[in-house]
Amino acid sequence: MTSAPPQPPAPPARRTYSYLGPAGTFTEAALAQVPEARGGVWKSVRNVAEALEDVVEGRSDAAMIAIENSVDGGVSTAQDALATMPGVRIVGEYLVPVRFVLVGRPGATLDDVSLVAAHPVAYAQCLRWLGRALPAHAHLPAASNVASALELLDGTSGADAAISPPGILEHHDLELLAEDIGDNPNAVTRFVLVARTIAPQPPTGADKTSLIVELPDDHPGALLEMLEQFATRGINLSLLASRPIGDALGRYRFVIDADGHIQDERMADALLGLRRFSPRVIFLGSYPRADRAVVRYPERYSDDIFVEARDWLRGLITGEPGVR
Amino acid sequence: MTSAPPQPPAPPARRTYSYLGPAGTFTEAALAQVPEARGGVWKSVRNVAEALEDVVEGRSDAAMIAIENSVDGGVSTAQDALATMPGVRIVGEYLVPVRFVLVGRPGATLDDVSLVAAHPVAYAQCLRWLGRALPAHAHLPAASNVASALELLDGTSGADAAISPPGILEHHDLELLAEDIGDNPNAVTRFVLVARTIAPQPPTGADKTSLIVELPDDHPGALLEMLEQFATRGINLSLLASRPIGDALGRYRFVIDADGHIQDERMADALLGLRRFSPRVIFLGSYPRADRAVVRYPERYSDDIFVEARDWLRGLITGEPGVR
Amino acid sequence: MTSAPPQPPAPPARRTYSYLGPAGTFTEAALAQVPEARGGVWKSVRNVAEALEDVVEGRSDAAMIAIENSVDGGVSTAQDALATMPGVRIVGEYLVPVRFVLVGRPGATLDDVSLVAAHPVAYAQCLRWLGRALPAHAHLPAASNVASALELLDGTSGADAAISPPGILEHHDLELLAEDIGDNPNAVTRFVLVARTIAPQPPTGADKTSLIVELPDDHPGALLEMLEQFATRGINLSLLASRPIGDALGRYRFVIDADGHIQDERMADALLGLRRFSPRVIFLGSYPRADRAVVRYPERYSDDIFVEARDWLRGLITGEPGVR
Amino acid sequence: MTSAPPQPPAPPARRTYSYLGPAGTFTEAALAQVPEARGGVWKSVRNVAEALEDVVEGRSDAAMIAIENSVDGGVSTAQDALATMPGVRIVGEYLVPVRFVLVGRPGATLDDVSLVAAHPVAYAQCLRWLGRALPAHAHLPAASNVASALELLDGTSGADAAISPPGILEHHDLELLAEDIGDNPNAVTRFVLVARTIAPQPPTGADKTSLIVELPDDHPGALLEMLEQFATRGINLSLLASRPIGDALGRYRFVIDADGHIQDERMADALLGLRRFSPRVIFLGSYPRADRAVVRYPERYSDDIFVEARDWLRGLITGEPGVR
Repeated sequence: MTSAPPQPPAPPARRTYSYLGPAGTFTEAALAQVPEARGGVWKSVRNVAEALEDVVEGRSDAAMIAIENSVDGGVSTAQDALATMPGVRIVGEYLVPVRFVLVGRPGATLDDVSLVAAHPVAYAQCLRWLGRALPAHAHLPAASNVASALELLDGTSGADAAISPPGILEHHDLELLAEDIGDNPNAVTRFVLVARTIAPQPPTGADKTSLIVELPDDHPGALLEMLEQFATRGINLSLLASRPIGDALGRYRFVIDADGHIQDERMADALLGLRRFSPRVIFLGSYPRADRAVVRYPERYSDDIFVEARDWLRGLITGEPGVR
Repeated sequence: MTSAPPQPPAPPARRTYSYLGPAGTFTEAALAQVPEARGGVWKSVRNVAEALEDVVEGRSDAAMIAIENSVDGGVSTAQDALATMPGVRIVGEYLVPVRFVLVGRPGATLDDVSLVAAHPVAYAQCLRWLGRALPAHAHLPAASNVASALELLDGTSGADAAISPPGILEHHDLELLAEDIGDNPNAVTRFVLVARTIAPQPPTGADKTSLIVELPDDHPGALLEMLEQFATRGINLSLLASRPIGDALGRYRFVIDADGHIQDERMADALLGLRRFSPRVIFLGSYPRADRAVVRYPERYSDDIFVEARDWLRGLITGEPGVR
Repeated sequence: MTSAPPQPPAPPARRTYSYLGPAGTFTEAALAQVPEARGGVWKSVRNVAEALEDVVEGRSDAAMIAIENSVDGGVSTAQDALATMPGVRIVGEYLVPVRFVLVGRPGATLDDVSLVAAHPVAYAQCLRWLGRALPAHAHLPAASNVASALELLDGTSGADAAISPPGILEHHDLELLAEDIGDNPNAVTRFVLVARTIAPQPPTGADKTSLIVELPDDHPGALLEMLEQFATRGINLSLLASRPIGDALGRYRFVIDADGHIQDERMADALLGLRRFSPRVIFLGSYPRADRAVVRYPERYSDDIFVEARDWLRGLITGEPGVR
Repeated sequence: MTSAPPQPPAPPARRTYSYLGPAGTFTEAALAQVPEARGGVWKSVRNVAEALEDVVEGRSDAAMIAIENSVDGGVSTAQDALATMPGVRIVGEYLVPVRFVLVGRPGATLDDVSLVAAHPVAYAQCLRWLGRALPAHAHLPAASNVASALELLDGTSGADAAISPPGILEHHDLELLAEDIGDNPNAVTRFVLVARTIAPQPPTGADKTSLIVELPDDHPGALLEMLEQFATRGINLSLLASRPIGDALGRYRFVIDADGHIQDERMADALLGLRRFSPRVIFLGSYPRADRAVVRYPERYSDDIFVEARDWLRGLITGEPGVR
């Protein structure tokens, strides 16, 4: 029997990334910030649940989803999806400035506009401009800004104009009716890249840890006690959002971003405290912050202080002479 | 000159109530729970801002608005409107069970349905049912469930069916395609009745106080300190929701419902503490709870304990013999 | 009948001050710091209880008592006496450096000394020096250092030397055997001047408030909750000492010195909080600090913040337009 | 060469116990409660420092010292000695009821008594009885009650009577002048048995842990933060006493007895927290409580909760599938 001739190594599989499409969305702009995603397959999906399912079921290696918007607050669907869908972990964070344009069919002018298609969140962010420029307009709620802009072209929309991210003009022949129509020039949307459960990347010193925490029960000090788990370890929270659990009025889970990494001693200790305290803690991941800002914390919460204390305790328990 | 004959007194003006219409909405069902509103003018408006403006500008005596939904969480627009619109006060709270029906044009059947019109919140609440019963459906986002149902009748909608509250069937000739399609049989929406700024009604013992509080600045313990203002006076919170202030990522205001009335000593003391602590506290009102549940609190926070302590302090300051 | 000739007005009664004598004690040195006491009657007493009884029963206008010693800690008898004797108030604070000399009979030398008379507290403070200079000495416990020094002279003491304050050498013909024999060169004793219950003097900005507080009952967080009454008003404590109540092991009262004056808004508010929380709070007085150090506190606890908050609350309750 | 005949095993050395003597003291009564001490050598010493030095330097196996008195509070010398003398550990706790008798020379009667010898602590505990029965008496402070009673017999004392524990009558021919002269019939003194540093005995479920803790620096919330280390682990404190560190007014260390054992997970965790927080923590020992009362604590602080949390954390860090 002759041996098979040596095979060339299989080319590495191209990695696949799911994102809320179509091309031109803010989510695509976020994905464009990921160096590893260049040259990969970009899979446009219709909603967050689909993006996360792609990851969980192995159709994609990662998914980019919007998680917080400085104007609208928590993107509730994404937060709820992360709370209820096991098997995923956040591996990166990306910020995209939120800028809106108003687009119409080729040749249209602002005077032609009476019905404006827009996702409710985008609509809310342009309300002051619309009130001034188009006081008599009506709103057609859309599931996607980019999609509703494209529907202007294919004739399936009754709207005269659509609110969209500027990126759409690179891809489609739409008329630019107005630029920078967002009410808040500093608006930013925060995205996270989500992969299947893996060990967290090593700490960079500028990390963030995302959690979802339920409170033990409806006793007055429960939230206070939860927050003390962080405060007593010198950990700052950059996000704390309440989301109803959904089974009864007044029951909440909390979406938390804490400064630091699960491999930082103080964060590990806080996680232990949370786990003992809470009926349900979900660790969403430790990953580098988008702004690369190094996490500052009081010296007394540094790793070596934790290590030294453990050595001391061990000495006490074994009765080591001189340790007390 | 003869004097004019005596005029009969002008009939008392009928009170006017703004609500999110049209007839058949959950908001109308909430308004139907207000005894004083019977026989008044019910003014249907298109959104929360319009309802509140009616009150502020005197076109209405009060407005009914949805403020919290056990499934979807805070109704963000209403919370933000209350945070930014001065001159209003909550005077009552009402609960409406959330039940949904699927309606179509007369003669339609479930098999005819491929495009379903629904407000995104209602859509999210029926998602499991829709996934089972209409796996191939598409969603047409609507600004109002009732309005989109009516558009089935007048031919302006491309949808085949609409998700609506059951009340719509009393008013309009629509085909009932399915009942109780909501995923959570216990879903409830909480409404508040809002009037112009007036002195709060006297305490009933079963009251609630609504507030919006901003934190002083981004120091780690600020939220903890805010919550302690309540905890150290034995006050339970039935709602704590974070809402982004909107000027930058990571800045939040908190929407709070606290058990008790501003005229309860412990609540008045907590409000003083909050005011001293926070750069911005908005008192939205003290009003009877919808469930009429009497507020329980530790005896040590009762009114007479507060009054006795003030008497003691006064004795100390004046040097009254025997007081120490 | 002739009227009696006009009488000259009675000379103002000289004020009387009780102090732990005899002449030469640290307590006398403290009394010498009181400007108003110059020219008054100085009444030497044998113990703290006698001094306080003089005040309560009107035999003296004020009493000087030692209240804290930097080496020995709380002078327990004085603290207990203040806790149990009603009708008195601290009106001033004085610091006396603690310096000790060793004295003997005229002509004696250090070599003659084998038995040293001293109050146990003074003895403890000179222990290191005694160990070095008189390694073979024995200790004769005395109720008073000055008295035991005088007993060297009148032959009633079997001791060879006594530990005394330096002041004794101004009054009596004793041999100075050694100076500055105290082990801690920075030792200071703190004294308070106590009068009958009167209204506190006006705030000076550099004031102290003395309290005795019992905890509600043996629940784990009671002390924590008590301390929060101060911390949440930005009040620093310069003294916190536990003293057993005496009815059972494990029951304590706390002796507290807090920075500030009862007429400071933050202190008044803290006192109200303590009174509501504790089964027993004793206000011992607000008085100028011995070191005249101006009390620093965060701006957010200043008087005008408290006043403004009360105005706001009043506006809310009366329904004043524009207040929210 | 003939082998040496077999030697009988050396008899086990008799264990030596130091205690504050002479025979008849409360400390001897405490030592009599120690089963292992029966048949050992009981070494009478003159003070706490001597007793502890015996242990540290190997002259004794253990020392019995008084540590807390329900009437007088912390026995400061013992607490300070434990704080400053390394190499010792508390291994047991014993309670002795405090009962006093008044004794005189054989044949004496109460009418003969004008000068009463007594340790200041004992004197303070009999003050009410003395005030009633011997209103004109004077006090001769003594370093030891039993010693001053013996000095009545050998003629070295000028006193007419001495306050002593009842046990003295078993050993010496003294006249009993009065029984049960203590003012508090429930008075109890707490003793601890101290040995050289060894590994703590295994937990019994009814244990106590003794600590001395210094606060980091003079910031307002430091004591609060220290107490939270216990409260946040469900640990009750049965003793909290402040003792001046002695270098400056206002600087304290805290003597703490906490319910539980260093090998209880919650206590180990609290010790780690204390060590990280405090510039100086001294572990004095974990040992069975004198009252054998089983320590109760909330279920959420049980050992298995701690173990489970650590397993979870490990799973997160290694990226174990299904753990989140």
